[in-house]
Amino acid sequence: MQTQVAILGAGPAGLFLSHLLHLQGIDSIVIESRSRDYVEGRLRAGVLEKGTVDALVEAGLGESLLREGLRHKEINFRFGGRNHTLDLDDLSGGRYVTVYGQQKVVKDIIAARMAAQGKILFETKAEEILGIETTNPRVRIVTKNGEQQEISCELVAGCDGFHGISRETIPSSILKTFERVYPFAWLGILAEAPPIFNCVTNVYHEERGFALLSMRSRTLSRLYMQCDPNEKLEDWPDERIWDELERRLEGTEKCTLVRGPILNKGITPMRSFVAEPMSYRRLFLAGDSAHIVPPTGAKGMNLAMADIRVLAPAMIDYFKTGATRLLDAYSDTCLRRVWKVERFSWSVTSMTHNFPEESRFDRRMRSATLDYLTSSKASGTTFAENFVGLPLENSEVQDSERDPRTVML
Amino acid sequence: MQTQVAILGAGPAGLFLSHLLHLQGIDSIVIESRSRDYVEGRLRAGVLEKGTVDALVEAGLGESLLREGLRHKEINFRFGGRNHTLDLDDLSGGRYVTVYGQQKVVKDIIAARMAAQGKILFETKAEEILGIETTNPRVRIVTKNGEQQEISCELVAGCDGFHGISRETIPSSILKTFERVYPFAWLGILAEAPPIFNCVTNVYHEERGFALLSMRSRTLSRLYMQCDPNEKLEDWPDERIWDELERRLEGTEKCTLVRGPILNKGITPMRSFVAEPMSYRRLFLAGDSAHIVPPTGAKGMNLAMADIRVLAPAMIDYFKTGATRLLDAYSDTCLRRVWKVERFSWSVTSMTHNFPEESRFDRRMRSATLDYLTSSKASGTTFAENFVGLPLENSEVQDSERDPRTVML
Repeated sequence: MQTQVAILGAGPAGLFLSHLLHLQGIDSIVIESRSRDYVEGRLRAGVLEKGTVDALVEAGLGESLLREGLRHKEINFRFGGRNHTLDLDDLSGGRYVTVYGQQKVVKDIIAARMAAQGKILFETKAEEILGIETTNPRVRIVTKNGEQQEISCELVAGCDGFHGISRETIPSSILKTFERVYPFAWLGILAEAPPIFNCVTNVYHEERGFALLSMRSRTLSRLYMQCDPNEKLEDWPDERIWDELERRLEGTEKCTLVRGPILNKGITPMRSFVAEPMSYRRLFLAGDSAHIVPPTGAKGMNLAMADIRVLAPAMIDYFKTGATRLLDAYSDTCLRRVWKVERFSWSVTSMTHNFPEESRFDRRMRSATLDYLTSSKASGTTFAENFVGLPLENSEVQDSERDPRTVML
Repeated sequence: MQTQVAILGAGPAGLFLSHLLHLQGIDSIVIESRSRDYVEGRLRAGVLEKGTVDALVEAGLGESLLREGLRHKEINFRFGGRNHTLDLDDLSGGRYVTVYGQQKVVKDIIAARMAAQGKILFETKAEEILGIETTNPRVRIVTKNGEQQEISCELVAGCDGFHGISRETIPSSILKTFERVYPFAWLGILAEAPPIFNCVTNVYHEERGFALLSMRSRTLSRLYMQCDPNEKLEDWPDERIWDELERRLEGTEKCTLVRGPILNKGITPMRSFVAEPMSYRRLFLAGDSAHIVPPTGAKGMNLAMADIRVLAPAMIDYFKTGATRLLDAYSDTCLRRVWKVERFSWSVTSMTHNFPEESRFDRRMRSATLDYLTSSKASGTTFAENFVGLPLENSEVQDSERDPRTVML
């Protein structure tokens, strides 16, 4: 098989890239090891930055999103037993976030790709990327029938997630990784119960730690709390989950959860991870293959989509003009913002979760940070501008600042 | 001896309290274990918040301060080998800091107290505070001649520093302390050399850590850098200090220190500490006896002076009207701001110092934090508003929020 861009992974990043390339008449093939049903059903993040929404709408993918997405112009912090609301709208100059499940974004783009006869190879495993240092890289794949094939292309997009093969195609002498594994996990449920607050609420209880009250609709609650990373789902019968969530909501300002049937239950480990550089010759990493954020702050999908908002124009420029300037700058352009978003995700995690080894001084620092966040307009603004999404401001990296290892050929 | 207020410690807090009480005709005796020369020569902090300066000027202590103090409307951060300037004036709405040595503040107030025949007992040791739960507390002292005496008073101010006796007068069943000892110290020098920047410069070198370029005048530099807390001054001959400082200033944007004779050299351990409550019956802690901040952020003396700006009016109200309301609220009023200032000092320390056990991810978080600080107006504002000084906003703590253990009688 032959194409212009081989895209590994049919998550939001790979799909969106394929769609944007198609709009400019550039051919791609998406290779995805899972089935279409699996990918469309995978429960993930649900908070979209303004920039993510705008990019989707601009690409003609906004129909359901604009109809069903819930605009949130506020966010709550509950600590010391009281609620404190940040007015995102006011603090960020009229911006907001939109609650719309990641699997819906995936469904919307797959539908658009299918309608345009886009090539997505589901249940097909990418086994190896070959010749990435030549002008004609190839991806060796195994189809669902066990057939081995090669896809020949000009560029490769590695959107195949943290466990994908793309990142490891970069020589280990060049690849540098940065990681933090947090000493807690998130226990998350999706419950058929109306949310008690009409915006996302981060809860910090000085003894019991973090909880998050979010929602998917007016009747579906998405609730999380920090737990021991070694705990198993069997340790958490439904009653125990509700009881523990309620305990974390204790306080002088009362608030009572509405309980309902739990439709989905899962434990997510928490990790921060960055790979540098994000490109090598004709391979370009985007999304989780290049960086992982803990879910606090809801940046995972937004960061992936931001990569594509840089990568797609760079690839388009290359195919239209032959210029490699934007592709060569891709890694550095993305990384500066990636590190800022990593910082935000790490700092919101640090400010709302208890850590096993810490002292009571550290806990007071957490309470003081939350107190300052919700009582200083400047501090509230730092949260708001990150939460609604930092601008893609540095799209022009100076030649002198560019990492020479990332240059195409 | 008899007085209205016995004040332990002739640091800035104790002296300023004594002066403010005197202005309202209230008698006090200050007890100080060191000599006047020692106290006036002790090299300490040198950056005054706007609120500290205003309070000193308002109390008639501003003559030398206004003449000799250097107004700084900017602060530098140097990292990644480049300088980044925060415009405090612009970010904080026209406020600034004043560089004026703590020992000069001490000298100014001692001079004013002496001129008014104020009672400061130098070289006198406060051995014990007695009867703090009665209406007639006493302080047992030993004068420089070895004589034992008692000072009888109505109120006691514990301004005797971290190692003083005041804090331990609070029963251990009530006193709660919060502490963090940092895994590094500051090696500081005072050098006869012109400062290379005209504002305070925080330096962060990703491998070698923190340095601080400050000044006392146009010919006197005050320079610090993080070092191992177990190192001794003997390990640091002058040449090694200058060489190491220069290494931390490496970078694409060149800057060369002017070397000169080192007049003073010292190693300071770094600690965060808070005692709760800050008062008990008729004892009121202020300054280092109640809280220690690491020197990063220059908050130590300012925090002490802020305590007095709350304590003095409360004592005056008590002596004029007999009301204990403000004194009873003193601890809670101060602590909310104290925790915010502790947070600032801790966060600036964390953001500019390397920690021995950390990973390279943690180091990148530091660089990203500095990048964000100097590229986001909101983040710059959070620094500026803390550096020039948070307002004493919560002078009225609600009765319901008051810690009942702190009530006078």
